[in-house]
Amino acid sequence: MAEENLSVVLHSQGDLRLENRSIPEPGPDEVLLQMHSVGICGSDVHYWQHGRIGDFVLTKPMVLGHEAAGQVVKLGSAVTHLKVGDRVAIEPGVPREMDEFFKNGRYNLSPTIFFCATPPDSGNLCRYYTHNANFCYKLPDNVTFEEGALIEPLSVGIHACRRAGVTLGSTVFICGAGPIGLVCLIVAKAMGASKVVISDLVPERLSMAEELGADFQVKVKREDGPQQLAKTVEDMLGARPHVTIECTGVESSIQTAIYATRSGGVVVLVGLGSEMATVPLINAAVREVDIRGVFRYCNTWPMAINMLASGKVNVKPLVTHRFPLEQAAQAFETTRQGVGIKVMLKCNQSDQNP
Amino acid sequence: MAEENLSVVLHSQGDLRLENRSIPEPGPDEVLLQMHSVGICGSDVHYWQHGRIGDFVLTKPMVLGHEAAGQVVKLGSAVTHLKVGDRVAIEPGVPREMDEFFKNGRYNLSPTIFFCATPPDSGNLCRYYTHNANFCYKLPDNVTFEEGALIEPLSVGIHACRRAGVTLGSTVFICGAGPIGLVCLIVAKAMGASKVVISDLVPERLSMAEELGADFQVKVKREDGPQQLAKTVEDMLGARPHVTIECTGVESSIQTAIYATRSGGVVVLVGLGSEMATVPLINAAVREVDIRGVFRYCNTWPMAINMLASGKVNVKPLVTHRFPLEQAAQAFETTRQGVGIKVMLKCNQSDQNP
Amino acid sequence: MAEENLSVVLHSQGDLRLENRSIPEPGPDEVLLQMHSVGICGSDVHYWQHGRIGDFVLTKPMVLGHEAAGQVVKLGSAVTHLKVGDRVAIEPGVPREMDEFFKNGRYNLSPTIFFCATPPDSGNLCRYYTHNANFCYKLPDNVTFEEGALIEPLSVGIHACRRAGVTLGSTVFICGAGPIGLVCLIVAKAMGASKVVISDLVPERLSMAEELGADFQVKVKREDGPQQLAKTVEDMLGARPHVTIECTGVESSIQTAIYATRSGGVVVLVGLGSEMATVPLINAAVREVDIRGVFRYCNTWPMAINMLASGKVNVKPLVTHRFPLEQAAQAFETTRQGVGIKVMLKCNQSDQNP
Amino acid sequence: MAEENLSVVLHSQGDLRLENRSIPEPGPDEVLLQMHSVGICGSDVHYWQHGRIGDFVLTKPMVLGHEAAGQVVKLGSAVTHLKVGDRVAIEPGVPREMDEFFKNGRYNLSPTIFFCATPPDSGNLCRYYTHNANFCYKLPDNVTFEEGALIEPLSVGIHACRRAGVTLGSTVFICGAGPIGLVCLIVAKAMGASKVVISDLVPERLSMAEELGADFQVKVKREDGPQQLAKTVEDMLGARPHVTIECTGVESSIQTAIYATRSGGVVVLVGLGSEMATVPLINAAVREVDIRGVFRYCNTWPMAINMLASGKVNVKPLVTHRFPLEQAAQAFETTRQGVGIKVMLKCNQSDQNP
Repeated sequence: MAEENLSVVLHSQGDLRLENRSIPEPGPDEVLLQMHSVGICGSDVHYWQHGRIGDFVLTKPMVLGHEAAGQVVKLGSAVTHLKVGDRVAIEPGVPREMDEFFKNGRYNLSPTIFFCATPPDSGNLCRYYTHNANFCYKLPDNVTFEEGALIEPLSVGIHACRRAGVTLGSTVFICGAGPIGLVCLIVAKAMGASKVVISDLVPERLSMAEELGADFQVKVKREDGPQQLAKTVEDMLGARPHVTIECTGVESSIQTAIYATRSGGVVVLVGLGSEMATVPLINAAVREVDIRGVFRYCNTWPMAINMLASGKVNVKPLVTHRFPLEQAAQAFETTRQGVGIKVMLKCNQSDQNP
Repeated sequence: MAEENLSVVLHSQGDLRLENRSIPEPGPDEVLLQMHSVGICGSDVHYWQHGRIGDFVLTKPMVLGHEAAGQVVKLGSAVTHLKVGDRVAIEPGVPREMDEFFKNGRYNLSPTIFFCATPPDSGNLCRYYTHNANFCYKLPDNVTFEEGALIEPLSVGIHACRRAGVTLGSTVFICGAGPIGLVCLIVAKAMGASKVVISDLVPERLSMAEELGADFQVKVKREDGPQQLAKTVEDMLGARPHVTIECTGVESSIQTAIYATRSGGVVVLVGLGSEMATVPLINAAVREVDIRGVFRYCNTWPMAINMLASGKVNVKPLVTHRFPLEQAAQAFETTRQGVGIKVMLKCNQSDQNP
Repeated sequence: MAEENLSVVLHSQGDLRLENRSIPEPGPDEVLLQMHSVGICGSDVHYWQHGRIGDFVLTKPMVLGHEAAGQVVKLGSAVTHLKVGDRVAIEPGVPREMDEFFKNGRYNLSPTIFFCATPPDSGNLCRYYTHNANFCYKLPDNVTFEEGALIEPLSVGIHACRRAGVTLGSTVFICGAGPIGLVCLIVAKAMGASKVVISDLVPERLSMAEELGADFQVKVKREDGPQQLAKTVEDMLGARPHVTIECTGVESSIQTAIYATRSGGVVVLVGLGSEMATVPLINAAVREVDIRGVFRYCNTWPMAINMLASGKVNVKPLVTHRFPLEQAAQAFETTRQGVGIKVMLKCNQSDQNP
Repeated sequence: MAEENLSVVLHSQGDLRLENRSIPEPGPDEVLLQMHSVGICGSDVHYWQHGRIGDFVLTKPMVLGHEAAGQVVKLGSAVTHLKVGDRVAIEPGVPREMDEFFKNGRYNLSPTIFFCATPPDSGNLCRYYTHNANFCYKLPDNVTFEEGALIEPLSVGIHACRRAGVTLGSTVFICGAGPIGLVCLIVAKAMGASKVVISDLVPERLSMAEELGADFQVKVKREDGPQQLAKTVEDMLGARPHVTIECTGVESSIQTAIYATRSGGVVVLVGLGSEMATVPLINAAVREVDIRGVFRYCNTWPMAINMLASGKVNVKPLVTHRFPLEQAAQAFETTRQGVGIKVMLKCNQSDQNP
């Protein structure tokens, strides 16, 4: 096979294969990319382990991966703003229709959006990949491919903090110190939050959060009551936080988030748990604590690149493991075990640098 | 007793008395008002029947009433913007402290706010009453006392629709066609909503809603499933509504509200039910349907007066019963039975006009 | 010529011709429309008289017309949401690139946007016309073609009032009672404005404004000073207006707009005058009166259709003249003379109804 | 004289005196403060030199000073949230009326507001001073008095950046590197601005801006054209800035600000120049570049204290000169000459520390 395009393909629940595919041709509005660095997301692992996430069900083989950066190797006929050789970060969601959501600037809500590694759409954990050029963003020289790939998880934090209205002097409570909680922490700080409290069950995660700038850490025990935890947070800050970002999806944690937040504040739901949740909705309602969800993100890549280029945020410590694409199985297993924070797959055999 | 000040006083749960009190003297920033028209609110009846609402517990005798309008008969020493003879509508909430909420323009959230007929603060269901002059708003000649008293429930609708972001061309679903659902309907229409669907268990309420401008009515049966009702609303409108205003507090209705609302839209919680509610929070979160509560209102009287003076809204049909103050017992019993929409008590013996 | 496509073509300044063109084929994302009703805009006349507007200069023949509605007669291969026979209103601006403005929901600011009858892009004053199907909006049965065509000027009013933040109880001052001032008036009222003052030099225009719902009219004389006019407006309303919408572009009128507006309010600039304007910028700045311009509109068609379908606004009185397409010369001359409000060209020989 | 209260009193234009006054008694809602550090503002010098600023005219002797921090030495009878010994920063503006502006959270626009050292209201450049306790904010132990005094100029920057909508990844252009330009720079960076360009005529000021974090400096020459300067800014950033903050008040600089700002962006006017300004208003309007002024600030002290306590901003380098209160004349002369950035007067004889 002359044109090698090694790809990480999920065939069905539990059946993850490394296989060779043909190199695709870019359409008029697309670019062909030589992939460089692709992070493994919890959702990649979830599809592998369960074959589905909610209503998204794998029904045919799908390439995984959506936290990605690569280099332009071929331009579609209509592409003018990129050129061969450009290093780019890839926004994995590309709206297919100019519907009301797209026209209003909230294209993440478009029901027909293409999204890498969400069935039935394939992702970019492979050697060569084509993507809509309008959703490929050129990286400045001082931003690495890995930083480019990390814009995807960073975008979750940006979108969450933006929806939360984090601003100068905000006090923020983040429930959960996993990868998403940590990017929310980084972003909240960069937006001017004065104090951030972060909670988790696992001490190691709290230590990492402290290193990344968390002002206070709450070690949660399973028997802690939501109102008791809320009180702990209030005592730490001297007042209830303006904003709470819930990243666990656990029911009791959502309850804590509501009780903990200051009147007139905002709870943002990032973590996803079970279909129905029992929560103190009245407590939120009569104190005008708004509850806002996030679905992925929109309009985050340009500001993320600005942040990275200016050194406003440092996401490099998030990468704790690296594997060449050929060792994808081992990389997935590492991620499944929850070791470290972010596992990065290196797709370009001749350049395995960050 | 020379100076009569007949007052409706709740002594304890179930013990409502009509008694004479002395006429108070206005403080420097207050005015003494001769009360004219005071509407009975569901909360007045609730205190009478239960002696409490949530954490607000009656511990000493309290004058009821907070939907009120009257006439200035005496000025406090520092009052300059009103004069004797002015007809005014009374905003019942008066912040006691210049705290962060007041300074930020959300004084309704101030935890120490004075509020008429909320324990321990007395209301204005009486002949003479003193109130902070800054929260008394002069009525134009073409706005009646009863319209002035109705600004209070109207304000609930204004605050709810404003928090919901109702604007030109919005489609709105209102759960519950009681007095609050109806004022939300009136306000949503005045704000430019193109189509309003309203739901209720009681056909008579739906008929009243239709008369007040509802475009569609949904007769709810107790066995209807939330997703089924949501589908009914979508079918009526041709698309899911931008905004849902939940005025019942019933758990299944909150569920319906979430399922029914368009992605990127808003559910406003006006009705209050039990402490904990089991709801499809994830459905709201991943479609970025925001959930916002309301606590009373703030900054609504001036715009309400503008609306009434300009004829933009007609609240007069809401008054279905009138009683002189002396017949308060009968008026409360009528309200308790849920007959009609709004019962108005007439406090001025020499002027019982609207 | 078998396929007749009579078109109103501007060849150069002053050289307006009625000529036959071939019927175009729709591209994959386009529809072919049989045009029904097209309004003449001041800009059409301006291109005819001057050959340019600002930096937009006519350099080759261009079909005029951008206030338009028609019927789908042929579908492009990729079009699914419309079908042959659908009656549609046409949004004349179609973004060509998925740039930052489009992604953020402000596609009107996209520098490469296609726009009907703005050089070098041709418009739709013709028998047959192709347009991007995503910017054709199906009209409900109870909305006429002419109402569909009027969505374009109505959109200017919607965008202006939306940028101004007009809401329930707003008081609004509109400078200029020409077609744009009148649509702003209609929209402001539909958004809940309690009182609207409108000014103009011409009494007939003020009479029309009064008929359309203006609460107060100010007959301006050329010698009136801006501060004097501002005082007149304040006296009429009893307080300075929350919002001023400037539709004349005249320097002294912009000055009046600033002086007239309440502290913390908004001046929206709709009218376009000379490049540089001398205005009391400090007066605006220290009273935090925001100055906001509008460039065309975005995201207005769906809400406009909702409004028209629900009867919330009545734009029919705006059409004062109708001509068959064959009499385009006479129609343009009528518009040039400023007679009436809106001149409508009827492009379908077999259906000249509204 | 037993009770010494040395005060800096402006008697008339040019007549600045250091004189002894009696120590005032706090009213019920006030505290008596022993002043510690008071910065000299350009407006203090302007009143001294000109006897007026715009419509504010000195008509009787007035104590200068409004950038201040001190220590509580006596409580008014109704004060509960402070205690003797508390170190506080003073917000100089205290609304006198609960008018629409105060109720809406924009009390800075209240026309009857009390404001330190704005005729006829005296300031706090003295030994002892009484102030409304609700506008005294307790300083944490790790925030110095001087930092407390600097909250006032910092608040100008906070209010300007907040009105500008500066957020994560914003690119910002600041015209003028004087004290206000520098605080805007500090705040913009703290809010997440990725790149800040700052301009000035004076190289020394640009050097200071660079030290404080400005990414690019533009050395302006008087003959530079506004469009040319705008192009320089665009070239530095690679695109036009999202936000421009104009701190000079100079007409040509306002012109530059408009030309320089990205479509859909914001120009904030902080600097105040002459009554009328000739500006390219159409350029702003058709690109929807909003023009927003600022008048002082509101709701900034709590967030500023949060920022200072958390070390998010460092304002200490702004203080370049210190004088004991007794040397006020020399301090004012130093400020008048424009030497350094901020001159601080030390009012407490027994504690002249920062």
